[in-house]
Amino acid sequence: MPAKLAPERNRGAIIACGELPANQRTPALLARLIGLVGDSPRVILISAPDKSDDDDIELEAMLTATGCAQLHRHALTTRAGAEQRQLLDLVEQADLVILNAEQPLKLSTLIGGSSLARLLRKRNAAGMAVCGVGAGAAVLCEHMLASGTSGPTPRVGSASLAPGLGLTNRVVIDQGGNASDRLGRLLAALALNPFALGLGIDASTVVVIGPDNVLEVFGNGGVTIIDPSEMADSNAAELEAGAPIRITNMRLHALTAGTRFDLDFRRAID
Amino acid sequence: MPAKLAPERNRGAIIACGELPANQRTPALLARLIGLVGDSPRVILISAPDKSDDDDIELEAMLTATGCAQLHRHALTTRAGAEQRQLLDLVEQADLVILNAEQPLKLSTLIGGSSLARLLRKRNAAGMAVCGVGAGAAVLCEHMLASGTSGPTPRVGSASLAPGLGLTNRVVIDQGGNASDRLGRLLAALALNPFALGLGIDASTVVVIGPDNVLEVFGNGGVTIIDPSEMADSNAAELEAGAPIRITNMRLHALTAGTRFDLDFRRAID
Repeated sequence: MPAKLAPERNRGAIIACGELPANQRTPALLARLIGLVGDSPRVILISAPDKSDDDDIELEAMLTATGCAQLHRHALTTRAGAEQRQLLDLVEQADLVILNAEQPLKLSTLIGGSSLARLLRKRNAAGMAVCGVGAGAAVLCEHMLASGTSGPTPRVGSASLAPGLGLTNRVVIDQGGNASDRLGRLLAALALNPFALGLGIDASTVVVIGPDNVLEVFGNGGVTIIDPSEMADSNAAELEAGAPIRITNMRLHALTAGTRFDLDFRRAID
Repeated sequence: MPAKLAPERNRGAIIACGELPANQRTPALLARLIGLVGDSPRVILISAPDKSDDDDIELEAMLTATGCAQLHRHALTTRAGAEQRQLLDLVEQADLVILNAEQPLKLSTLIGGSSLARLLRKRNAAGMAVCGVGAGAAVLCEHMLASGTSGPTPRVGSASLAPGLGLTNRVVIDQGGNASDRLGRLLAALALNPFALGLGIDASTVVVIGPDNVLEVFGNGGVTIIDPSEMADSNAAELEAGAPIRITNMRLHALTAGTRFDLDFRRAID
């Protein structure tokens, strides 16, 4: 067995949160999430709303009841917004930044290459926690699952990748949740280069990746982990658009609340 | 590596066919399927229609154009129908019996324990091919996936098993196809006893299991194989109904047309 890779001891938590439906369980889940970050943390909620920011206002209201010492909400609508001195100063002082979006590309096109993106990477490396909610979870990764089709079978073109915020390159995240049929697009994404692990996160479910690259699951749903490291065979490079892809020897884990999983050794921890 | 189990050399093919949509590709797929059985085979189509037998009539019409020497269609509506001498005589002489249904339980409740079911097992063991189309594919198995919910996460009660026709106990088949979200219920079914392999078959896609327990994929979609033989950990026995189940260390393969997979050694064959 290889030696454990040198952990980035000072890195802040990377928190990937599935979609948060407006139900009575969500405030308790958010309180748990805030509690993981620390006592009375300073929290910034940054969003890239599609049309209205009603969802952000609701999320802000629920967060207010969880014991944050400070809570600031910023809706980004232009790339200039990601250069605002006032926002950057707040992030410098924050304990947790929450990214919320309905579409991964909405957020990545607004913050990619900005001072805000650089600062989020720097502050996370120095200890600040960063949480992505819904599509915001996909954005946390170096390789961001930008969009995809539904279905259990991987097909050429069924997953589109784009560069994300880059807090971790260990995982590709699909937060499509219970209702969507995410297996095929996650397999298609991994088939392109079987380096990262695929993480599918149910709604109302949270994955916390610690500085030691061990993740833990919280919440009411499940997390699908697909490990392609022993992948034996794929014909993804030879096919036309839409064709089903052959991929053999993937490892699959279904994790639930309380389960811990080591991303370096790629196995569940008892 | 264990020695190859003694193959049942005389057994006929077990053919599991996903749902067959009424499109222009289906006749060619059926012709391929019939060609696998032999030249000018005698074919019996047995169905358990839900309301109308329009689908069976359409399937019969498409089969007529594939070069069968004989083609008989029987719609079962009562258990007495599965004892009819005329039908049993036809099955005695057939090269291929095709089972078609919209619901697995519709077929299993009509033929379970009948003279027809016994004869199908005996004739398959002696060389006759048996094909299940759509829900008929699930019925081929000893452990039949009778019904299930949709979603990527296995949950307690999300899969219901019932005894099927019993031609093979190596696999549990889900033919829910492209549109349904079958991963969770297949994992839930395997979690109950990690003995069989899980097979998810797309629409317009065919799996042929030969007497040597090697399967081959045909058609336009994909086949998901889930192998639980190295399953490390499951809490399925401890949970309440609806709770997500933790299952680690499953093996997953996505197969496409032309791929062969050995059910004894549980690996793709190059």
